[in-house]
Amino acid sequence: MSRPRFAFKISARDGAARRGRITMQRGTIETPAFMPVGTAATVKAMLPGSVGATGAEIILANTYHLMLRPGAERIARLGGLHAFMRWERPILTDSGGYQVMSLAELRRIDEKGVAFRSHLDGARHLLTPERSMEIQGLLGADIVMAFDECTPFPASHEDARESMELSMRWAARSRAAFDGNAEQASRAALFGIQQGSVYPDLREASSKALTGIGFDGYAVGGLAVGEGHDAMVETLDHCVPMLPEAAPRYLMGVGKPADIIAAVERGIDMFDCVLPTRSGRTGQAFTWRGPVNIKNARHRDDPRPLDEDVESPARDFSRAYLHHLFRSGEILGAMLLTWHNLAFYQALMARLRAAIEAGHLAEEAAAIRACYDGGDIEPL
Amino acid sequence: MSRPRFAFKISARDGAARRGRITMQRGTIETPAFMPVGTAATVKAMLPGSVGATGAEIILANTYHLMLRPGAERIARLGGLHAFMRWERPILTDSGGYQVMSLAELRRIDEKGVAFRSHLDGARHLLTPERSMEIQGLLGADIVMAFDECTPFPASHEDARESMELSMRWAARSRAAFDGNAEQASRAALFGIQQGSVYPDLREASSKALTGIGFDGYAVGGLAVGEGHDAMVETLDHCVPMLPEAAPRYLMGVGKPADIIAAVERGIDMFDCVLPTRSGRTGQAFTWRGPVNIKNARHRDDPRPLDEDVESPARDFSRAYLHHLFRSGEILGAMLLTWHNLAFYQALMARLRAAIEAGHLAEEAAAIRACYDGGDIEPL
Repeated sequence: MSRPRFAFKISARDGAARRGRITMQRGTIETPAFMPVGTAATVKAMLPGSVGATGAEIILANTYHLMLRPGAERIARLGGLHAFMRWERPILTDSGGYQVMSLAELRRIDEKGVAFRSHLDGARHLLTPERSMEIQGLLGADIVMAFDECTPFPASHEDARESMELSMRWAARSRAAFDGNAEQASRAALFGIQQGSVYPDLREASSKALTGIGFDGYAVGGLAVGEGHDAMVETLDHCVPMLPEAAPRYLMGVGKPADIIAAVERGIDMFDCVLPTRSGRTGQAFTWRGPVNIKNARHRDDPRPLDEDVESPARDFSRAYLHHLFRSGEILGAMLLTWHNLAFYQALMARLRAAIEAGHLAEEAAAIRACYDGGDIEPL
Repeated sequence: MSRPRFAFKISARDGAARRGRITMQRGTIETPAFMPVGTAATVKAMLPGSVGATGAEIILANTYHLMLRPGAERIARLGGLHAFMRWERPILTDSGGYQVMSLAELRRIDEKGVAFRSHLDGARHLLTPERSMEIQGLLGADIVMAFDECTPFPASHEDARESMELSMRWAARSRAAFDGNAEQASRAALFGIQQGSVYPDLREASSKALTGIGFDGYAVGGLAVGEGHDAMVETLDHCVPMLPEAAPRYLMGVGKPADIIAAVERGIDMFDCVLPTRSGRTGQAFTWRGPVNIKNARHRDDPRPLDEDVESPARDFSRAYLHHLFRSGEILGAMLLTWHNLAFYQALMARLRAAIEAGHLAEEAAAIRACYDGGDIEPL
């Protein structure tokens, strides 16, 4: 049985929220979906089989990091990213546009693309829409992101407009380059990215430009860049309905449980964020009773598990043991909390999916929000 | 079916080498056996189930580290070390004698014991034979080591004699304290530790003192402290035959594959060493074709596994991927190489056990030595 290149089917709705399924050659993805981040071809501190065991059906990898180390051509010679990191299900790669602006040195942006020096060794590189498509093709990504400029926040209307219009020209070049690679076009999907900062007219213009080009899915870009929960939700209120109803919608780089819930309620289908993995390495755990900082002294004699309702190997150990591992700087602490947090995030998405199917998303969202009031966990 | 407190049965011999089985309440241990080191109640970078999956039947934990953090009384309140770290098979704990001298600050040794300050927080502690037995009892160790002074190397005959005689008086006090704890004495085994540096007459006197007291097993102490492979083997040549034939013999802190092979040939039954775990975290792998430094640039395009004959998850990945993980400082690199190295060490022991049974240990030892010539791996 061969699967289609890309299909998205919505099976239930609750308000603006959608319950759907993406089908691709490498597997299906139940939506709303959370994608663990595997920046450098590894979801940090996790074996790929363990990532799958949490319920994750797709992961994200970073074009910027992989093009610099070990290099896209090297990964292609070694059989592509799936073989390299031993993850057989779908992989989404970002375009490199966001990280080249936040991580690279001496970057210079013009119509052609972004020239920069590697933050690792200072080597010169050029990232353009065409090169980004080529790299994502070499990696073998299943979902390819158009190359864009993530507009900084805050931005004036004028700056946001210029940045958005550049991204839309790059989106058209991304589409052309993607379609020009027959192997990639026959196998992978291409997503466009809406920009326009917090300005409704610019978001509208961006959406029109993207739908004019035509993509398999549409991302909301330029959020989760410091604007805060309320501004993000306000922007989602107007910008999500502008996106095509029949395609999946992806909110990049989000987020905390409260952010995800608010975005699902507004019709977002896909998410990625480093929060569960990064928090896991610093001793921050997500539980159904709220956030837990396992390094806190109050856990040192606590025989209870982190959360008996979150299925992961962390459940086999006491809070006292996890506390000891973090106090001692033991790798096993990062391993167990990362696994726990990824399992929590997948369980959160499953709970939201079930609530949409049952038509009681509002009640379920309120119950979860009661634990994650305001979206803030203890400071990282 | 209840198992005895402690039994040791030798089923085959090849020269001085012995093939045996230790039976204790928490499980059996096929000998010669290698014990992975779980210093702070975790075999670093490994889930306990994964340690068991490599074939390990017993692990070692360190009294010194655990008494300081999280504290022996705390572990006892939490149900003992087995429950705390979720390892159900036997655990051997050292006495703390070695590490209090190598790690603690402001230590002062006298007839009573060792007064010192914690290297973690400067708190004052006193470690005596009686307190060491108490701590190992609180931890719930299956094999308890007598409290001794590990004689520094090199030592004059006079210094080595005084140190050994102190250790023998402490061995008698350890025996008395152990036997005075009915719960511990009914459940656990107590091993004595032979000292005497490189001097045959002192090793002989130490052995006589220990056998006069009577222990379940006998360790060779004071080796693997910088004397080198040849001096170690020379010492084993004369000191192992002094130990009781019917009890297991344990060479503490050893070692490289060549050290283990030489010691097995001389009648040693048990080993522990941080080498496979520590090497795994620094990118050094043990293979049947010799040592591999995975950080070396020659591996960066190598699609082959580390060693297809060593069963662990590391076998699923290319050397190129493992190289990338170490170059990128990814935790997964430490996880995979640690698992691989522990699997290699268990396979090494299984190969030695099978060779003893088959009566061709010399040939097998020569074949393995050809890969680990001189016992040196690439510099750590």
